[in-house]
Amino acid sequence: MQGLMMDMPLLISGLIKYAADHHGEAEVAAREIEGDIHRYTYADAHPRMQRMALALKRLGMKQGDRVGTLAFNTHRHFEMFYAAPGMGYVLHTVNPRLFPDQLVYIINHAEDRLLFIDRATLPLVEAIAPRLETIEAFVFMSSRERMPEVNLPKPVHCYEELLAAEDATGFEWPLFDEKTASTICYTSGTTGNPKGVVYSHRAAILQTLVCSSFEFMPGHKEGVREVMFPMAPLFHGNGWNMPFTAPFTGSKLVLPGRNYEPDKLYELIEGEGVTLSAGVPSFWLILLDWLGRNGKKFSTLRATLSSGSAPPRAMVDKLKREYGVDYIQAWGMTEALGCTMPSMRPGSDALSDQEKLDRRMVSGRACFGTELRIVDDEGKALPHDGVAVGHLRARGPWVASGYMKLNEGVDADGWLITGDMALIDPLGHVSLTDRSKDVIKSGGEWISSIQLEDAALSHPDVLQAAVIAVTHEKWQERPLLLIVRRQGATVDGQTILDHMRPKVASWWMPDAVEFLDEFPMTGTGKVQKMALRSRFKDYRVDA
Amino acid sequence: MQGLMMDMPLLISGLIKYAADHHGEAEVAAREIEGDIHRYTYADAHPRMQRMALALKRLGMKQGDRVGTLAFNTHRHFEMFYAAPGMGYVLHTVNPRLFPDQLVYIINHAEDRLLFIDRATLPLVEAIAPRLETIEAFVFMSSRERMPEVNLPKPVHCYEELLAAEDATGFEWPLFDEKTASTICYTSGTTGNPKGVVYSHRAAILQTLVCSSFEFMPGHKEGVREVMFPMAPLFHGNGWNMPFTAPFTGSKLVLPGRNYEPDKLYELIEGEGVTLSAGVPSFWLILLDWLGRNGKKFSTLRATLSSGSAPPRAMVDKLKREYGVDYIQAWGMTEALGCTMPSMRPGSDALSDQEKLDRRMVSGRACFGTELRIVDDEGKALPHDGVAVGHLRARGPWVASGYMKLNEGVDADGWLITGDMALIDPLGHVSLTDRSKDVIKSGGEWISSIQLEDAALSHPDVLQAAVIAVTHEKWQERPLLLIVRRQGATVDGQTILDHMRPKVASWWMPDAVEFLDEFPMTGTGKVQKMALRSRFKDYRVDA
Repeated sequence: MQGLMMDMPLLISGLIKYAADHHGEAEVAAREIEGDIHRYTYADAHPRMQRMALALKRLGMKQGDRVGTLAFNTHRHFEMFYAAPGMGYVLHTVNPRLFPDQLVYIINHAEDRLLFIDRATLPLVEAIAPRLETIEAFVFMSSRERMPEVNLPKPVHCYEELLAAEDATGFEWPLFDEKTASTICYTSGTTGNPKGVVYSHRAAILQTLVCSSFEFMPGHKEGVREVMFPMAPLFHGNGWNMPFTAPFTGSKLVLPGRNYEPDKLYELIEGEGVTLSAGVPSFWLILLDWLGRNGKKFSTLRATLSSGSAPPRAMVDKLKREYGVDYIQAWGMTEALGCTMPSMRPGSDALSDQEKLDRRMVSGRACFGTELRIVDDEGKALPHDGVAVGHLRARGPWVASGYMKLNEGVDADGWLITGDMALIDPLGHVSLTDRSKDVIKSGGEWISSIQLEDAALSHPDVLQAAVIAVTHEKWQERPLLLIVRRQGATVDGQTILDHMRPKVASWWMPDAVEFLDEFPMTGTGKVQKMALRSRFKDYRVDA
Repeated sequence: MQGLMMDMPLLISGLIKYAADHHGEAEVAAREIEGDIHRYTYADAHPRMQRMALALKRLGMKQGDRVGTLAFNTHRHFEMFYAAPGMGYVLHTVNPRLFPDQLVYIINHAEDRLLFIDRATLPLVEAIAPRLETIEAFVFMSSRERMPEVNLPKPVHCYEELLAAEDATGFEWPLFDEKTASTICYTSGTTGNPKGVVYSHRAAILQTLVCSSFEFMPGHKEGVREVMFPMAPLFHGNGWNMPFTAPFTGSKLVLPGRNYEPDKLYELIEGEGVTLSAGVPSFWLILLDWLGRNGKKFSTLRATLSSGSAPPRAMVDKLKREYGVDYIQAWGMTEALGCTMPSMRPGSDALSDQEKLDRRMVSGRACFGTELRIVDDEGKALPHDGVAVGHLRARGPWVASGYMKLNEGVDADGWLITGDMALIDPLGHVSLTDRSKDVIKSGGEWISSIQLEDAALSHPDVLQAAVIAVTHEKWQERPLLLIVRRQGATVDGQTILDHMRPKVASWWMPDAVEFLDEFPMTGTGKVQKMALRSRFKDYRVDA
């Protein structure tokens, strides 16, 4: 027996129409590539998105066609999150920080027909354009006055001129199946080519609803009183859904453009009254360093959402104690957005500050809709006892079931292979112990590189730390500690090891320490351990 | 092109599994019919629901079969919201306050196979049981010790004995299409027989998500810090979704059993630390009267959600000023739960207290997912200018598309006919002016009975007010004001009219006032205007 409810699809276009109608006065403040700040409201943005939707149609796009963007966090990029999917086209957000060969591969692989670019990505695009096989035209995301000379082998349209040519009077967003593809984000694999995660309208709306619930964000206020600031790029997992959640909750949205210098981020946070931000720990390591050196504090920022690798405890503690900012960690990945939440269980108010910090340090708990479990190397489920460590698996209506043109990523039981090693405690808290590929297997036992890095980072002179496995004749693998010192610091390896010793098991202690001027970073701001492993592949600690 | 996300249904069983796993320690405190308070947690409730699911299966239920409840707000009734739909059966919550003939009609019409009853509804059930054509057995919702002698023509099972016979070890809730029917609630029509609204799992989950969003409830806290108290009965629009939203957000759930006496409600609110309640204005008129006479205040209650008819402004103002409680009004009906929200637009913080109160007095704004509009008698859309009054229509994925075995209720354009008259202002606020059937048409113009009642209720000696249309030779219809005085008050009609005169248009002023000892009330706590109209059908004001 079926329910008797209207059969209407959940579509991304519904979000922005709703925001324009019901939160029309909420602002979007976005730094232009040129550095100035552009301001308008959701009510202003909506008809522009509709006109761009019509422009895409005029350029020949059809349902399911891919529209690529190679762009930073600007208001026009935000507009594209609605203009393309709203029509049933698929927005493919390409990460400009990838290597040129990867860019060429994924744009060709996704068969993007159009590529939206900005002033910051133009040199990159000019370099790769001859190798782009499916691109029929480029759209430069600015006004005509701000367009530089471009040298591209296909027609180049001006974004504002495309808009100006359209009239959206009376335009209604089309209705179609909610399982239609909405956006694509390629995730740079550790081996082989990047793989495309294909989101659906249904998944995007459900993620938005779950991420906007009472319980998702600790210490939140009403949506209309929040100011959200995705430091995470829009091309990184849909900007952690903030281009969808901010309009939904009526929050002001602040976008950093291309400029991630700490002084520019700070200027936006203070100038725009940001209350919630989002980004990986590396932003904060750099920003905190800058704040300390410049004696700055925050006046409105209350919480920052982080994801991916576990943050250093010392940093989380410092952010809370010295800056009043809750650093809230959740587990997530391109394949599984909005799957854990950082909020605490019922009754947590009674915990001590240190116990609360313990719970903040883990990667949250599964959100409604998502199931998490850990399995051993044979795929057998392990207990959630806070002790057993296994391969983390995820399942749910907004978890990826495969990749663009690639039927893999899911195990025999239908669960997503996350690539993370984790333990889950009886209360459901997930603690990542490693990336499956980063774990160090010494004498048959696992050593967590993350916990070692955390111990090293608690030394005040350490700016960045990475632990990698190096080959060892007797133990198969042993940990090597790599360090980037804080500016001006001269700490030596032995001092750091002495500092770490009380914090970790003795047999986990790194066998050696090396210092680097800087770490190679991935396009999404993470330490590129693969490159470090390659550089130190012949390093011996058992010689 | 389809998205590549896992194809998994949104099911009600997922909510309680999630609550048991992730909010397991949150409490449910429910008054038993016998008066004592039963306490347990979501972790305790979940396996009981699973065992009841197995018991229903053992009793022969099959997918789509209807399981009726004729019961008050107890923990066992709460359990039934998951036990039956979780298996793919359909929970039919029958309103025990309906007339016996209506009860017989809807139980037969829904073809309920089982009927779950409690001590409070037993006399009613004994009276109608011989006329129930499809009921195969009854389940008495208590332990064996508390079961009285029953006299029913079909087998009577004991709820706790059914549970005790089942073992849910290893039980997993089944998966099925999310559009499957989950619960049924009949709405007592103004003419003809009651009509059954059939909710789906999909609609219930989406309603839960939307009603738990940042922006839905003004001044909310994290879910796990809330204590929710549906004074609205569970058989009234799924208890306004609180049996779903409280487990989802990890909030403590408080249920009043059958006892709606003001002292008993107050005891629960204070004793259980209630922060949010929900119920129609009539609860509050009575509770406020009692609070005033007993000199009581609230120590934890922060907000109360109301729906349906507009509340008296004086009451809303008093609740805020004297009791610190936000009375937050939303529009809703059995056919359209979770369709408007009472939260304010961005920037509303800057409004004066009186302006804020103005916005609190209206019926909220459409939630994400729902569209509202007003149309004239011919179905033509009217402007949202805050002036035009028309028939309110609603559309969205969790709005009813028809009724049980009855293909009606939706207009030619696919919108729900709500039966309400309303205006919508340019900011999206909905103001109900009347029920379509209650509106008074005088000389071709509409007079709002609600606004007249509001004006009368602002007189301190008036406990209840109802305005109905009576026939008038010249003007077709004119308003008659009916009054129930506050206990001990002796105010006369002329005094009330004088009090109203500055508040309403002169041609709206009632032509006469009559006093009643009490009003006939509907099963859901509303004034039964149909009965009043019938009683005064020959009343003349133009004689």
